[in-house]
Amino acid sequence: MKIAVLGNGTVGNGVLDIIEQQMKPACKDIEIAYLLIREGKPKTKPIMCDDINTILQDTSVDLVVEVMGGIEPAHTYILKALRMKKHVVSANKAVIAKYMKEFQECADENNVCFLYEASCGGGIPWLHNLFQAKRIDDIHEISGIFNGTTNYILDHMTKEQKQFDVILRRAQELGYAEKDPSADIDGIDIQNKLKISASIAFDSDIVQDFPTFGIRTIHKNDIAYFTSLHKCVKLMAVAKKQDDRYGAAVEPLLYDADAMESSISENFNLACLNGTTIGDCKFYGQGAGKLPTANAVVQDIIDILYQLPKPEISLSKNLRHDTSLVKGVYIVRTNNKECRQILEDFYDREERFQGYSYIWTKCISAYQMHQFIKQIMDKDAGAFMARIHEVTK
Amino acid sequence: MKIAVLGNGTVGNGVLDIIEQQMKPACKDIEIAYLLIREGKPKTKPIMCDDINTILQDTSVDLVVEVMGGIEPAHTYILKALRMKKHVVSANKAVIAKYMKEFQECADENNVCFLYEASCGGGIPWLHNLFQAKRIDDIHEISGIFNGTTNYILDHMTKEQKQFDVILRRAQELGYAEKDPSADIDGIDIQNKLKISASIAFDSDIVQDFPTFGIRTIHKNDIAYFTSLHKCVKLMAVAKKQDDRYGAAVEPLLYDADAMESSISENFNLACLNGTTIGDCKFYGQGAGKLPTANAVVQDIIDILYQLPKPEISLSKNLRHDTSLVKGVYIVRTNNKECRQILEDFYDREERFQGYSYIWTKCISAYQMHQFIKQIMDKDAGAFMARIHEVTK
Repeated sequence: MKIAVLGNGTVGNGVLDIIEQQMKPACKDIEIAYLLIREGKPKTKPIMCDDINTILQDTSVDLVVEVMGGIEPAHTYILKALRMKKHVVSANKAVIAKYMKEFQECADENNVCFLYEASCGGGIPWLHNLFQAKRIDDIHEISGIFNGTTNYILDHMTKEQKQFDVILRRAQELGYAEKDPSADIDGIDIQNKLKISASIAFDSDIVQDFPTFGIRTIHKNDIAYFTSLHKCVKLMAVAKKQDDRYGAAVEPLLYDADAMESSISENFNLACLNGTTIGDCKFYGQGAGKLPTANAVVQDIIDILYQLPKPEISLSKNLRHDTSLVKGVYIVRTNNKECRQILEDFYDREERFQGYSYIWTKCISAYQMHQFIKQIMDKDAGAFMARIHEVTK
Repeated sequence: MKIAVLGNGTVGNGVLDIIEQQMKPACKDIEIAYLLIREGKPKTKPIMCDDINTILQDTSVDLVVEVMGGIEPAHTYILKALRMKKHVVSANKAVIAKYMKEFQECADENNVCFLYEASCGGGIPWLHNLFQAKRIDDIHEISGIFNGTTNYILDHMTKEQKQFDVILRRAQELGYAEKDPSADIDGIDIQNKLKISASIAFDSDIVQDFPTFGIRTIHKNDIAYFTSLHKCVKLMAVAKKQDDRYGAAVEPLLYDADAMESSISENFNLACLNGTTIGDCKFYGQGAGKLPTANAVVQDIIDILYQLPKPEISLSKNLRHDTSLVKGVYIVRTNNKECRQILEDFYDREERFQGYSYIWTKCISAYQMHQFIKQIMDKDAGAFMARIHEVTK
């Protein structure tokens, strides 16, 4: 099978490495015909090409791998490739989260596959296992640590008792975090992955307007306070379904110190599902990185090479967003007394820890709490909050 | 597709439940034509049948599910079904561990499938993901918590600081442990699962003679000592490959308290692999139980229903058992002074804890240590040992 790789970055080169160097039978049947590079860049390999139309018009190319990142021109190229009846494999969570329904419909119309394992959880075979679980079970809940950068930061802030900025800088030096880390630390990257995962899990095109709160304002004192409660903070994605309703949120969650989520260290990811008969199932691995992410891309290519049945994706269910499904007790750190009034109706108690004030709320929906935290941050831009994870039986 | 279920026990009835009650499209295409029960038992359902030959001779039956357990007649029935060109799905780890090469060859000769996801890790899609990983990667190492009974016992001994016997009795009352718990607590059940998993991972029919040591002699004082070292004890299966050599062992391992393995509570299981490009990947879920195990059986049935390519199983590689591949520092508890002499050459130091003596060894191979512990137990039948897990980079 002839394929074209769009994008000469880390993941694209990982795909080249795996296909060219690995000796497994499946990889021998895949031939990389083109590697799309930016116009004007030097062509250092014979497969390099800077004209997308050359690739699209080559009818011998069966499959296009989109690993460029960003919204445009990825969106346009994916659609064009699908319309030219080429299968598409993508690792680009931003463009998939935004256009997954359009891509899926276009792939179905043209009777080709559109797969994107690498977009969620990197090397973890997460979407594959989610599809697999859905062959038998209804999925009631999914959750996970879907961002290695923020997990690295929280893990090292905890272990080294250092400030956010210090660890963020190191993550940037190590290549775990971007120069502009906003997409990671504000939870946008996780929001994209949750939109994709929840849409698949619940057969519905989930609107990406669910509450999202990142870790930009976390302070080493917060971590010390959580540790004193025998809790560990993790930036989590959570989505639940009940009957014809769903709820979702991206936010810091506090787990018991001996919970599995608390054990996820460094930049590893964890993806969890709960199904009718299988119960809890969790998948752990590298959520990013050249070879793990490329591995996920190549797995999709092999599925198409082997003509496996397309995973059944139906985004047609009309689930209602139930803003009360995701809820719990929050701990809010603010030293601004006016902020307490905002939480008046849900105020439970307050604890002082090393000069900082932590307000515990009564049980409140994530939706409502995220409205409150916006009001609080208007007055106290450095405030932080986390929800206490409760074990459901 | 018409199927027959051999065995009217927990898993057999779970398979019936899932196929009869679940509403997913795949399950609707599976019809249970027979349920084999023991001769003389009352036939309370029309599908019940007590004659295996009726099933084998019915050419409309495409697939046989073997969930009887035990070696015979399961071994004979599986072979007969394969020879009658029926696919076979089994959850019976004991018979598969013993005869997997024979079954595989027979299935290949008759051009039918032989699948056994449920035999290792219960509801966890472990073998499936192992096959999947092998499409791209060489697998260097597998490991895991493959027995829910012993994990329940160790977890509750730790949390409640109670003796082995007390928790074992409760596990028996809860239905987690058999009346004769030997297969679980002596590591035989895990040995079967490691033989199956390692054979698949390394493409070799691994001989089941690797060192195996269970938890029969663990004492609550041992757990207290390990806790004082910030360690958590887990009964683990481990297999490694290096070039054309493999090593394997089943034994108690000591993990750092914040390691992922330490977080596995109750009767849950964890299965881990390390591959060339994917790195570490771990899979968590219910390792036993009616519906999770039946879920794994039905997944295999659906793979066959959908005519997915057979997973590539080659047991043909002639790997050499390298008795030095699995090794480390052991802690041995014995109050018998003669026993110390047995360990003379590998003695590192001794620690006293609440009246008990713990000998730390130098680095020693599992193979050799397991020889020593047999000698030690001839003199001190209640001795216990555990290896300290070392993080390899």
